Amino acid sequence: MSTELLSNFFAGRWQSGQGHAQTLVDPVLGTALVQVSNAGIDLSEGFEFARTQGGEALRALTYKQRAQMLSEIVQVLIANKANYYDISTANSGTTVKDSAVDIEGAIFTLSTYAKLGDSLGDSHVLLDGERIRMGKDPLFQTQHLLSPTPGVALFINAFNFPSWGLWEKAAPALLSGVPVIVKPATATAWLTQKMVQDVVDAKILPVGALSVICGSSAGLMDQLKPFDVVSFTGSADTAHIIRSHPAVAQKSVRCNIEADSLNSALLDPATTPESDVFQLFVSEVVREMTVKSGQKCTAIRRVFVPATLYEATAAAITAKLKKITVGNPRNESVRMGALVNREQYHNVIAGIETLKQEASVLFDGNASGLQDADPSVSACVAPVLLGSTSPADAKVLHDVEVFGPVATLMAYTDIQQAYALIQRGEGSLVMSVYSDNPSFIASTTAALGSHHGRIHAISPDVAALHTGHGNVMPGSLHGGPGRAGGGEELGGLRALNFYHRRTALQASSAALDAMAQNAGVLKL
Amino acid sequence: MSTELLSNFFAGRWQSGQGHAQTLVDPVLGTALVQVSNAGIDLSEGFEFARTQGGEALRALTYKQRAQMLSEIVQVLIANKANYYDISTANSGTTVKDSAVDIEGAIFTLSTYAKLGDSLGDSHVLLDGERIRMGKDPLFQTQHLLSPTPGVALFINAFNFPSWGLWEKAAPALLSGVPVIVKPATATAWLTQKMVQDVVDAKILPVGALSVICGSSAGLMDQLKPFDVVSFTGSADTAHIIRSHPAVAQKSVRCNIEADSLNSALLDPATTPESDVFQLFVSEVVREMTVKSGQKCTAIRRVFVPATLYEATAAAITAKLKKITVGNPRNESVRMGALVNREQYHNVIAGIETLKQEASVLFDGNASGLQDADPSVSACVAPVLLGSTSPADAKVLHDVEVFGPVATLMAYTDIQQAYALIQRGEGSLVMSVYSDNPSFIASTTAALGSHHGRIHAISPDVAALHTGHGNVMPGSLHGGPGRAGGGEELGGLRALNFYHRRTALQASSAALDAMAQNAGVLKL
Repeated sequence: MSTELLSNFFAGRWQSGQGHAQTLVDPVLGTALVQVSNAGIDLSEGFEFARTQGGEALRALTYKQRAQMLSEIVQVLIANKANYYDISTANSGTTVKDSAVDIEGAIFTLSTYAKLGDSLGDSHVLLDGERIRMGKDPLFQTQHLLSPTPGVALFINAFNFPSWGLWEKAAPALLSGVPVIVKPATATAWLTQKMVQDVVDAKILPVGALSVICGSSAGLMDQLKPFDVVSFTGSADTAHIIRSHPAVAQKSVRCNIEADSLNSALLDPATTPESDVFQLFVSEVVREMTVKSGQKCTAIRRVFVPATLYEATAAAITAKLKKITVGNPRNESVRMGALVNREQYHNVIAGIETLKQEASVLFDGNASGLQDADPSVSACVAPVLLGSTSPADAKVLHDVEVFGPVATLMAYTDIQQAYALIQRGEGSLVMSVYSDNPSFIASTTAALGSHHGRIHAISPDVAALHTGHGNVMPGSLHGGPGRAGGGEELGGLRALNFYHRRTALQASSAALDAMAQNAGVLKL
Repeated sequence: MSTELLSNFFAGRWQSGQGHAQTLVDPVLGTALVQVSNAGIDLSEGFEFARTQGGEALRALTYKQRAQMLSEIVQVLIANKANYYDISTANSGTTVKDSAVDIEGAIFTLSTYAKLGDSLGDSHVLLDGERIRMGKDPLFQTQHLLSPTPGVALFINAFNFPSWGLWEKAAPALLSGVPVIVKPATATAWLTQKMVQDVVDAKILPVGALSVICGSSAGLMDQLKPFDVVSFTGSADTAHIIRSHPAVAQKSVRCNIEADSLNSALLDPATTPESDVFQLFVSEVVREMTVKSGQKCTAIRRVFVPATLYEATAAAITAKLKKITVGNPRNESVRMGALVNREQYHNVIAGIETLKQEASVLFDGNASGLQDADPSVSACVAPVLLGSTSPADAKVLHDVEVFGPVATLMAYTDIQQAYALIQRGEGSLVMSVYSDNPSFIASTTAALGSHHGRIHAISPDVAALHTGHGNVMPGSLHGGPGRAGGGEELGGLRALNFYHRRTALQASSAALDAMAQNAGVLKL
């Protein structure tokens, strides 16, 4: 049976790859869905087209006009939403709720940048900070400015967020006036390709402002020039290849890396098992283990509790995990769908075995069987809770990330030890702290802020308001130091920094006034 | 004759290298001055000492306390200034005026950061921007924070600024609570080593906060861990090696590169030869060609004038260059001293020959002979002005930087061509624009901002106030895209970003209040 070969929108036109194509598969049913290929496509032409046609047209518009385009993209995505959920179910094997994280998350992020961008007005350049005196006389001063980089933004994306992963990057890029070329991960490229197709068909953006190229990433980095930028989400190994590439290492192409990390959850040692804090903690850990089958780079992997609460926590988490039914997301009783494919299935199974060298199994849902799914065909894995009462002696527990519904409960003896253990992740995207004591949250943030791009504090007063450990909010920084890749995304208008070049204009007041007349203001 | 072997302050103690040492030479007289070596020194011990002893002690202090230390360093440097000028004359071959750029520049930069740091108060963490609502209810919000990175800052520095190059980096690093290890360029390591020695002897900083290691840079990068940072100033080739090193490419060690670039000066096409603008332009070009014998990464290399003013500009610059006497800086009639060494001398001579493939010689001061200097021994080169009336056809003129008293005058036909020619530098640290028309300055900035880290505008109203094309002011950004390395230094408190990690704290108002209680505010 032959399947549709997805077309690439590249160099301003729809192009089909020639020769060998890769097939995308339903991870629950094992059936072939569509094919992708970019073989034989002229990469140089497409990058140059985006850089010139796309970039010049985008930069001719103002921030406010580009923000308006983001709003129009939102309308297109909303209009076609049903189709995106169908693709997500088929290609990602996710439940409706899990597909929403990807699809609604993208729409929310785009809407946020549309609003933020509108506040920048009808300008082509942004003022960054106040004027700075260069001497006693205020006639000669410095004003820092941000100008859109006159290059292209290449996104090499991960399989777990084909929708949000595109738009959380494209929203600030397009708002900045920088054209986008997205290379989605092959396993789930369909949704990315379909969304780009709908937006292209709607003729919202200048031609060349948004391109999609599916299939192999070979040769893409070779196309980059000094004013281009590249943003990568994925494994540390590929990140290494990208950062070592001459485009980055020699030509100063700006590079943003967001890699997976061993994110932590920390329970305040003063917590009692009867408290609201404890309940909030247990619920959040279970949610993070199971949302998108644990395939979130922000998911909780390490769960730190005071040794006295180890047994109670294990029991409480287990009780909730037992209720998670796993299988075909088309079955309404199913709470958790599949991993993205059999390759990831085998990786997760092998990863659990590795962690078991240093941890015991507190709960393994895989004994219960699957709903409407064939275990020999589907990529379904049930939640697994591991545990260690001596995490200070562990190595792999702080080093090996299993990208599935798996977490390890760890007992700490005192808070200083907990801090030291969390730091052994060598830099994470996010940690969450659970406490009803504001000063405990503050001191934890002071101790661990430098190791995290985000700290999410859950206390009973915000039980109904907080946005979740693993959800990436467009107003908050996303990224983390060290192992997490050292990148920075989102954070409201902070995201525009990556797509702009900063310049100190040293000039007379008259010249600074002339410059400021039509400039927007970057206010954080 | 044996010379002193300079000691390295490393791992909290003075250590002499064993085995092979390199000799530093007077570039005018050719005599040996001192020797450097770090052979046999335990690098791992020194980095770990700085990271733990130095870093922990620094971070235990507040921004205000660390700012106070910068003030005390200023006092030590002022007290020992005479000695620094002597070393500079001997080892850099510079006149008093040129030595001042390096020495007084460092003191001014340190003083500026002492003042800026004082404003951050008795805090250990900084608030970055306003609180951001995460929903309608303001009880749950995001506050971005900056925390000092818990690592060490390695500086691999250039030969042309042994003083300023150390302190413009060390001031924001130490203020941020990050310990410094400086590896000065061997040719002029003496001044760096001496300044560190004086500051160490004055016992201002915690032991381990400031280390100096002279000689080979082999093995230094291997010592870096995920929370460390490295800042390099120098050639694109070495920059490539640093960026490709596994510390950066794999461990996400933050890396700042400042490389040389082909900086431009642009004369407004509306200028007349009788105008003040023209005079200011000619003076600035001559100053930039001759200060520190053109050995500034910010020096003007390409001089753009409307074709109608090409002859007049050539004549005016030549008239001034004729007055520049070159030779031994100890002779008071000498206006310009030597290059740093004979190796650079040969590089510059060869570079001039390369440029001459595409440019004609408008003036060559080397016919006039040297004052008190032996041309077969000294590294003295006189100013050379080259010229091209068809710069659009040139390649090497936009690509080869000759790091000496050399610039190329280029005629442009219209302003759009001038912009395009300037952009052929592929990213520069700085350009200057000369005009009495504020809107011309503004439109030039809009057109070329993305290609420059700094734009310096000289108009007659600021003739007596402006700070100079090539002078790097601590309040203004220093760095540039593309060829210039893509880095960012200085820019007032912006410099602290490199030494801090940004974290989004998502929490209840009570927790955010507790966090803010003792935090400083980063206000740009």
